[in-house]
Amino acid sequence: MNENGVITVVSGFAGTGKGTVMKKLVREYDHYALSVSMTTRDPRPGEVDGREYFFTDEPSFLKAVEEDRLIEHACYCGKYYGTPRDYVDRKLSEGKDVLLEIEIQGALQIKEKFPDAFLIFILPPSSDELVKRLRGRGTETEEQVKNRLKRAGHESEGIEKYDAVVVNDDVSACADAIDLLVRAAKFRPSHNEDFIGSVRNGILSL
Amino acid sequence: MNENGVITVVSGFAGTGKGTVMKKLVREYDHYALSVSMTTRDPRPGEVDGREYFFTDEPSFLKAVEEDRLIEHACYCGKYYGTPRDYVDRKLSEGKDVLLEIEIQGALQIKEKFPDAFLIFILPPSSDELVKRLRGRGTETEEQVKNRLKRAGHESEGIEKYDAVVVNDDVSACADAIDLLVRAAKFRPSHNEDFIGSVRNGILSL
Repeated sequence: MNENGVITVVSGFAGTGKGTVMKKLVREYDHYALSVSMTTRDPRPGEVDGREYFFTDEPSFLKAVEEDRLIEHACYCGKYYGTPRDYVDRKLSEGKDVLLEIEIQGALQIKEKFPDAFLIFILPPSSDELVKRLRGRGTETEEQVKNRLKRAGHESEGIEKYDAVVVNDDVSACADAIDLLVRAAKFRPSHNEDFIGSVRNGILSL
Repeated sequence: MNENGVITVVSGFAGTGKGTVMKKLVREYDHYALSVSMTTRDPRPGEVDGREYFFTDEPSFLKAVEEDRLIEHACYCGKYYGTPRDYVDRKLSEGKDVLLEIEIQGALQIKEKFPDAFLIFILPPSSDELVKRLRGRGTETEEQVKNRLKRAGHESEGIEKYDAVVVNDDVSACADAIDLLVRAAKFRPSHNEDFIGSVRNGILSL
């Protein structure tokens, strides 16, 4: 059976705590590698180039797209975001499960290019809890909270296209559930085509 | 999230040790219920009605089909086999994961009727090992072994329609892998439609 890494895409509404769960996974299990996206948005205070994002300008980003150096990309609020191919390829070949924290538009691009990718959507325990968390951040105006909820409503239409949904009620439990799912994802036929082919051909040639 | 039971279909070539694995699962984990099929074939020595199979005659079997009391059925070598609905329904409502050991024809019927069913195909470690196990049984003629291999070749064409493949190299490891898969199957969107709907409707109504 194929023990190679799985491209694991994690999406979720703003306010579901995706980032915290991803950091916990990478810290507690050594078989994950967290992909760093490229973006044309400005760094926020405390963000480090190459850690949160690879910060770049628009001409360089578009050149990367043209040269097929990004496995997915999308545009939000006039800024570009994308996933560099070289890091993903390298980590997969090292046997790591590569975590991509991207939204639905990019997630579906990944699924199309890599049918073996596994897509996980993180849900809040309830819609009330989501509102509470967004307001509780204290960093956003009521207008911004409303915009995020509007976008969440839109994103929610695509949840059925994911392979799995996980509730983030408790960060540890959520990370453990994702790890269970990634281990299970290695048993999918799409991840074991070579092995299935070898058994099948062996039987047919008898 | 939905903690209800999952209909788990296990298939595999003759000689892969499906039966042993299923018994181990039921013995070691208390959340499984093993479905007993109805058949028109004669009991073999040692088989008990209601344990290995519900033995019946053809008119009774066909009446059960007509009255939609079987969730799948198929015919092999002139004998009918089918899965009674009442046992499956009762065990699922008790929160049990119901194991069905059936072949590909029945498995695909189940998937069509219950999109939430989870289909697992057990593979031998290699085609050579499969031949060795079939011959090693010592109960079959070389002609019967050849027939089983021919059928295995045919069945192997459908493996990609399953949700997962598991190698039975070691019975305990194989049972543990199946248990991992069944636990992971509860996170599929198709198993959590009500919860996803409640979060979505909550957000959209804000």
